[in-house]
Amino acid sequence: MNLLDKYRSVRKRTEDICKPLQKEDYVVQPVVDVSPPKWHIGHTTWFFETFILKEHASNYKEYDENYNYVFNSYYETVGARVIRTDRGNLSRPTVDDIYAYRKYVDDAMPLLLENVQNPALDEVILLGLNHEEQHQELLLTDIKYILGNNPLFPAYDPSVATSSVGNGNAEMVNMPAGIYEIGFTGEGFCFDNELNRHKVYLQDYQISDELVTNGEYLEFIAAGGYTDFRYWHAEGWDWVKTNNITAPEYWYNINNKWQHYTYAGLKEVDEKDILNHISFYEASAYAAWKGLRLPTEFEWEAAAAKFIWGKRWEWTESAYLPYPGFTKAPGAIGEYNGKFMVNQKVLRGGSEVTSPGHSRVTYRNFFHPQLRWQYTGIRLAQ
Amino acid sequence: MNLLDKYRSVRKRTEDICKPLQKEDYVVQPVVDVSPPKWHIGHTTWFFETFILKEHASNYKEYDENYNYVFNSYYETVGARVIRTDRGNLSRPTVDDIYAYRKYVDDAMPLLLENVQNPALDEVILLGLNHEEQHQELLLTDIKYILGNNPLFPAYDPSVATSSVGNGNAEMVNMPAGIYEIGFTGEGFCFDNELNRHKVYLQDYQISDELVTNGEYLEFIAAGGYTDFRYWHAEGWDWVKTNNITAPEYWYNINNKWQHYTYAGLKEVDEKDILNHISFYEASAYAAWKGLRLPTEFEWEAAAAKFIWGKRWEWTESAYLPYPGFTKAPGAIGEYNGKFMVNQKVLRGGSEVTSPGHSRVTYRNFFHPQLRWQYTGIRLAQ
Amino acid sequence: MNLLDKYRSVRKRTEDICKPLQKEDYVVQPVVDVSPPKWHIGHTTWFFETFILKEHASNYKEYDENYNYVFNSYYETVGARVIRTDRGNLSRPTVDDIYAYRKYVDDAMPLLLENVQNPALDEVILLGLNHEEQHQELLLTDIKYILGNNPLFPAYDPSVATSSVGNGNAEMVNMPAGIYEIGFTGEGFCFDNELNRHKVYLQDYQISDELVTNGEYLEFIAAGGYTDFRYWHAEGWDWVKTNNITAPEYWYNINNKWQHYTYAGLKEVDEKDILNHISFYEASAYAAWKGLRLPTEFEWEAAAAKFIWGKRWEWTESAYLPYPGFTKAPGAIGEYNGKFMVNQKVLRGGSEVTSPGHSRVTYRNFFHPQLRWQYTGIRLAQ
Amino acid sequence: MNLLDKYRSVRKRTEDICKPLQKEDYVVQPVVDVSPPKWHIGHTTWFFETFILKEHASNYKEYDENYNYVFNSYYETVGARVIRTDRGNLSRPTVDDIYAYRKYVDDAMPLLLENVQNPALDEVILLGLNHEEQHQELLLTDIKYILGNNPLFPAYDPSVATSSVGNGNAEMVNMPAGIYEIGFTGEGFCFDNELNRHKVYLQDYQISDELVTNGEYLEFIAAGGYTDFRYWHAEGWDWVKTNNITAPEYWYNINNKWQHYTYAGLKEVDEKDILNHISFYEASAYAAWKGLRLPTEFEWEAAAAKFIWGKRWEWTESAYLPYPGFTKAPGAIGEYNGKFMVNQKVLRGGSEVTSPGHSRVTYRNFFHPQLRWQYTGIRLAQ
Repeated sequence: MNLLDKYRSVRKRTEDICKPLQKEDYVVQPVVDVSPPKWHIGHTTWFFETFILKEHASNYKEYDENYNYVFNSYYETVGARVIRTDRGNLSRPTVDDIYAYRKYVDDAMPLLLENVQNPALDEVILLGLNHEEQHQELLLTDIKYILGNNPLFPAYDPSVATSSVGNGNAEMVNMPAGIYEIGFTGEGFCFDNELNRHKVYLQDYQISDELVTNGEYLEFIAAGGYTDFRYWHAEGWDWVKTNNITAPEYWYNINNKWQHYTYAGLKEVDEKDILNHISFYEASAYAAWKGLRLPTEFEWEAAAAKFIWGKRWEWTESAYLPYPGFTKAPGAIGEYNGKFMVNQKVLRGGSEVTSPGHSRVTYRNFFHPQLRWQYTGIRLAQ
Repeated sequence: MNLLDKYRSVRKRTEDICKPLQKEDYVVQPVVDVSPPKWHIGHTTWFFETFILKEHASNYKEYDENYNYVFNSYYETVGARVIRTDRGNLSRPTVDDIYAYRKYVDDAMPLLLENVQNPALDEVILLGLNHEEQHQELLLTDIKYILGNNPLFPAYDPSVATSSVGNGNAEMVNMPAGIYEIGFTGEGFCFDNELNRHKVYLQDYQISDELVTNGEYLEFIAAGGYTDFRYWHAEGWDWVKTNNITAPEYWYNINNKWQHYTYAGLKEVDEKDILNHISFYEASAYAAWKGLRLPTEFEWEAAAAKFIWGKRWEWTESAYLPYPGFTKAPGAIGEYNGKFMVNQKVLRGGSEVTSPGHSRVTYRNFFHPQLRWQYTGIRLAQ
Repeated sequence: MNLLDKYRSVRKRTEDICKPLQKEDYVVQPVVDVSPPKWHIGHTTWFFETFILKEHASNYKEYDENYNYVFNSYYETVGARVIRTDRGNLSRPTVDDIYAYRKYVDDAMPLLLENVQNPALDEVILLGLNHEEQHQELLLTDIKYILGNNPLFPAYDPSVATSSVGNGNAEMVNMPAGIYEIGFTGEGFCFDNELNRHKVYLQDYQISDELVTNGEYLEFIAAGGYTDFRYWHAEGWDWVKTNNITAPEYWYNINNKWQHYTYAGLKEVDEKDILNHISFYEASAYAAWKGLRLPTEFEWEAAAAKFIWGKRWEWTESAYLPYPGFTKAPGAIGEYNGKFMVNQKVLRGGSEVTSPGHSRVTYRNFFHPQLRWQYTGIRLAQ
Repeated sequence: MNLLDKYRSVRKRTEDICKPLQKEDYVVQPVVDVSPPKWHIGHTTWFFETFILKEHASNYKEYDENYNYVFNSYYETVGARVIRTDRGNLSRPTVDDIYAYRKYVDDAMPLLLENVQNPALDEVILLGLNHEEQHQELLLTDIKYILGNNPLFPAYDPSVATSSVGNGNAEMVNMPAGIYEIGFTGEGFCFDNELNRHKVYLQDYQISDELVTNGEYLEFIAAGGYTDFRYWHAEGWDWVKTNNITAPEYWYNINNKWQHYTYAGLKEVDEKDILNHISFYEASAYAAWKGLRLPTEFEWEAAAAKFIWGKRWEWTESAYLPYPGFTKAPGAIGEYNGKFMVNQKVLRGGSEVTSPGHSRVTYRNFFHPQLRWQYTGIRLAQ
């Protein structure tokens, strides 16, 4: 696929994801980590306007200068105006306004791509498309949060599959000690945090070829896992107590039956499904209760050819840190990854709502350890 | 006007107020005191469904049982579900859903009114209509807050006048000491907090026949009123410091010119206009700076025939407390006023966005002393 | 007693109150409303140094210039130093340092009183002594809070009586409608908030000649008073829910017996004792449950000759507001009362830990409605 | 030194550290991370009572059962009592009470050591002594915080040296790529988090043989380092903005001179001294401004023989995570380290207030990235 076709395809998929939404669903921000869908629509557009059209398209006219601080990650005050601008408080620009902005930018891109031959430009466009694919996954998880925390439990779209039956037959894969090569290599796109490929020495270890299922996790709940501090990090235990955590996100015990919110509405929890929507603290406590542990991101990457992955983002023990030789790109693009490299945990794999072809074996996702609204799961190691 | 006509007229006015809105404007709740417009639309409808149709209309079928806890003031949890339900986080029911609910209830009312002759019923309907008129004013002030805190400063509707030129010629009215009758009397509707009419002894006092103007308040700002703690209550001073208050709500000093957000967008502050959008703390500090004070609600009511009122809600020195002999009505209707009678200040008068004919000389409005999004002003006394 | 003898007597009583304390007890501040005893010792001394010695004693040398911002109510930053100075975080000046400061000031006072004849000076000294008496009561209630919230429940001094048996035979006193004179009159000291004496018209009312007992309040608890929102102000109900309030301050249900912390340690609750340590919200809810109400401060003052008072500070329905003609004194002395006249409730009477002769029938105490660490009680009216 | 002599020596040093304190200094807790000195005195004693005397001394009688939840890390509620027990709010047990408790435990230890021959017991005692040495360093840093945040800036003890002149001649040490052995080996005590010794592959790197000085850091301040977000982690930038950070902890710019609080009181900052009291965020931002980075803990350990260390705890890039094969000991002792292995950064080295002989090249200290009250410094790598 050429770059323009790829551009059109990715941009269209974002809009397809939003098709089942009502306008009102585009607006709200029930918690700080969840952005309003209309913000995602505008922000991904702002990326192409700011880093590509305004920098490379000679006659390009900025759509609206105010959009810069509405869709930038950093809101700035203008003059002496001090304005509350939390994303979920902004009714304007409207959804229609933002789609018009989106169309305006999309209309300007083909002309640029036809007229400018520039490998550096292609690279930024590719970054923009991968950036948009990341926001596609966030769109799907944010929409789930918005609808799944609404007391009416409205369905989004039953056709988005997010359950997967495990094979119920997990086995430990043996991995010998030695030096392994870690990090991206070869052609194609990768993020800067996957570079540089480098040697890592691993002790011998074992890693499961299956993810933990709902049924296995229900045993942990039944055994009092949420009430025994010995399995938890000190900060995890505080989190459990402060938030009265007793089950994964979206799980409700109604009349002694566990139900959970899905894209098709409230459904009974299937014990054979792969577990989902748990925090790092819960993943780690579950592993401790089993007498096992989570793998490091290096152990995961070294063994990834030995098991099937891609259903859940898998919590690892590893903190999100720079690889040897990591350097930030100059300018705003350089803010992409490096500045988040503290207090977050690496997740590996991908999920059922990850954009097709977006992840790879060297891909590093990262979230704070208490967060649960992504499709997070558990793979055990020892 | 008969009751059905009155019903139709009030209900229509609510919808007219919302005509200039975009759907997105209906959804957001930028601060806790401001409700999303769609909540107002649903809540005022829920009032008629709950207290009139469900109680008095024999064949009435509830529209949707879930709406009870969405549009009630008190959200309840259902079973073991614990759901975050802050009003501004709810994208559903949608605006269209709520207007359909509204139509369903409005269609059921004429039938009831034709078939049931019941003065007690008429009284509750009249309460519902006055309740809706209160929400009309809140709708207008909440919309102003939603749009006026948006960085794009979108206009709402320039035709809603909210500025009034004072006559610049304030004089003190002399009122002799003695016993005055306070509280509602006569025919017609009043709220329970205006009853019972009772005697109050007032010392002799003077009260201004004009409200403070923007120009007069700018002198207070220029004289350093916001930086001298001597004019302020201790809690007011904390409020100024914590929130960096330097001017009324909606005022922005841009290039050394004072501008403020109005229904027509950002406009220059007119010194001749009556001051607006100040807290009780600011009103009290301004009066202290002038060597004067605010009137009590009794002083205001006793003198109200001597001046023009109705442009601004006027802060009084009085705390919101029950009148002698006040009793709560039994049941949910009794929650209307009594439970708020602590830590709030009485405002008297009415404003340019008060519904026509809604206020009267005995009317008691009340807000917490730090709030500014209503059309609040200052009348001085001594 | 001449002024110097009075000075010595009041100052000595403050030190006597602290005699049973360990040095550590002087230092802590478990909640913001409770000050460390050493701060009270220093602050009352600072009052005499600042408003009397520094202003009137010609050769007086300030003890330590740093003490001004340690013992003033307002902490100021010095230069660019930004220092956390919450009272309970300051280990220095030490208790011995502060007693040395106290002695230094006390040694300077007789000389001044012998040499200066000045009625205005006498007035400020009298204010300082009444101020110190107020801090004596705060010292006793703060000490109770410090020791009563310590898991060891150490006794302070069993000889400080704070329980009083009611006569169990409450009767309603009838008071006719009419004009009553309210506020201080005559010779002797009063605070500025008791002035000016003025006329108030009261409707006819009834007021109890006894305070509510523990036994009567236990009936309210047993009847589910803390779990039925109908008896509570909206803000009171929030307070109950947020803080899990189920009983008065210092009450603990241990093995199905109600015990409470007293100056003599943990003791069983005596049903015949007068109730104590309840918030305005609880007082009001109790009254609502009985179908009665709290008196206003004017009703209380008008009827005070008809009943015995002085065992508990009695919550009134009245908000703390200025009397007609109230003006703040110029300068720092003027900050004494006026700036607190918002969001607080008036209490009338006095308590068993009020300094002897300190209160009177026109005395106005005031606290925020949620506070409970004073000796607060309930008198009913209707 | 035999174990009993070692016990007496370590226990005596704790008391020596507290000799310059006033009783009041023992009580306060100005921020949550700083414990009152009397809590350290009691907690280190409780360790020996709980894990040694109560488990191994046959006739030992517990000193006071209430001390268990006062000096344990986890406060428990007893029966239905719900008591606020933040450490800085507890005036009891008094300092004298706690020293009496300390003496009681110290008197019981020799008897046990004479009568019981048990290598497992010796190991726990050794752990207790190393635990106490950690609290000795915390005592010194907590005392500095308590006095250094007091507006009187009282001196502690000028003889405790905490400044060190750098040699002003930093050079980069070259380290070749390869496999290095990391972790404790050999005889003697180590903490469980230093085990097991294992292979790590490092890329080639350079590491400075000197720590950053005050003078070098002043250049960063002068260059606007605190106002340019590009050098900071996103969370570090939030921390700077929220807390108005403009210099290291204890630094005050007075009349355009930088001064800082030391154990001898307020002193001018010496440009030649090694920098101190900075957060990980500041360390990382400084390195970014220099175009360099912080070393990982493995790079530090592998190169430690090539430079002098022990003046400052040195922030590393590494997150605090378990070494391969790490397992928690069963029971309460197992809570020592493992449960803190999330969201913290590893520090290596030691400081001038570290107990003599306490640290070693494999020693791993850890703190949250925003904390600054330890003797933290910067060593650069690339």
